[in-house]
Amino acid sequence: MQKKWGISMQDIHPVRFVLVETTHPGNIGSAARAMKTMGFHDLVLVNPKGDPASEEAVALASSASDVLKAATICSSIEEAIADCSWVIATSMRSRYLDWPVRTPREMAKQLVSEEGPIAIVFGRERNGLTNDELQLAHLHVSIPSAYETLSLNLAQAVQVMAYECRSQLLDAPTNQVKNGPYATSAELEGLYEHWEAMLQQVGFLKGNAEQLTMVRFKRLFQRARLERIELNMLRGVCKDVLKAAP
Amino acid sequence: MQKKWGISMQDIHPVRFVLVETTHPGNIGSAARAMKTMGFHDLVLVNPKGDPASEEAVALASSASDVLKAATICSSIEEAIADCSWVIATSMRSRYLDWPVRTPREMAKQLVSEEGPIAIVFGRERNGLTNDELQLAHLHVSIPSAYETLSLNLAQAVQVMAYECRSQLLDAPTNQVKNGPYATSAELEGLYEHWEAMLQQVGFLKGNAEQLTMVRFKRLFQRARLERIELNMLRGVCKDVLKAAP
Repeated sequence: MQKKWGISMQDIHPVRFVLVETTHPGNIGSAARAMKTMGFHDLVLVNPKGDPASEEAVALASSASDVLKAATICSSIEEAIADCSWVIATSMRSRYLDWPVRTPREMAKQLVSEEGPIAIVFGRERNGLTNDELQLAHLHVSIPSAYETLSLNLAQAVQVMAYECRSQLLDAPTNQVKNGPYATSAELEGLYEHWEAMLQQVGFLKGNAEQLTMVRFKRLFQRARLERIELNMLRGVCKDVLKAAP
Repeated sequence: MQKKWGISMQDIHPVRFVLVETTHPGNIGSAARAMKTMGFHDLVLVNPKGDPASEEAVALASSASDVLKAATICSSIEEAIADCSWVIATSMRSRYLDWPVRTPREMAKQLVSEEGPIAIVFGRERNGLTNDELQLAHLHVSIPSAYETLSLNLAQAVQVMAYECRSQLLDAPTNQVKNGPYATSAELEGLYEHWEAMLQQVGFLKGNAEQLTMVRFKRLFQRARLERIELNMLRGVCKDVLKAAP
């Protein structure tokens, strides 16, 4: 792989761009174009409200209509990111949840040493992502605006993220320390169910704080970036506890 | 001025965005939005073919319609950049003219140390800038695409350039004033001996606290990061005191 800007730098890294319930077909087309100019091709649309096959989407995709046509349609974010070991959610409300928040550049620097499928999730044009959706991510990225009342257009946010990923990937030294392998999102979901069942079983989850408690555990595990072996150890704990405390 | 990402970071640097003969009103509106999200307000339109007051332009500008309305219309690039001391032209055909070509990041790093009005010039959607127009610039910037047949949309190019300028301006140290030359360690040691002799002479150093007092002075001078000229002034003081108080 040639490590420099230029026309031969196609598909430099398997970064998936996930657009959630996008309303305007033009934004879907523009996002495809933004991705492809930066060498990314894996586009997933979760419940698109706008038609990705519409004339407007195709026109704005320009020569990236192949990316548009090859887009995968999913009915949930969970499905879109199931095989991903690193999930980034873009958010304007960066301080609402107490989740790790990075700038695009910080995120892209970390991206360089990641393996396996990575997803960057973009929310709805008007409302972004819900708190439940944000909690599916390992990391939140915020492209802060100079004005509270004005955020980047969806396709522009995709362009900035894709541009940063490309810049850092092309700048990065080829030799990076490998961690992991990390647990995938689907494996984490499995752990959370198991964990919650265990907490229920031993009477830890009581009263109103039940949901908040689980959010805190999720935050901890997401932040810790569980490796698969650690996840399996935790599931072993759940299993043993459930066995011992019937 | 607060030097960090955030909503109070308005108008961080007088960078002018010049759009030449833009055809689509939507691109003019989107460009205004892209600029304002990154804290830039100075928009100049050279012979716009699309109407910047059209419904589409205003809709896509979103809360940046003030930038759109305040845009200056010029009949030539020369007029648009007349007062600028640094002019950057964006170009896809980066190797055609033998002009200095930079990536957006390289350009933005240089921008930080520039004074006076700066202009970034964006060409026509289809044809970019002519060779004559490109030669008006001090520097060419290219945002290379992964594909020869697919370039960034105009508004996306504006977004990337504005994003890079903002990132670098906010990363730059707040104090660009040159200091020094600083005193060397040997010079400092000389000062400390001189200073102590002076204090002894005037009876300032008495009893057990003698050593501690000198430590405190040293701490103060080290922390202050003395310049050579300041050190010489202090030694002058020592000299004069020793002379005056025999």
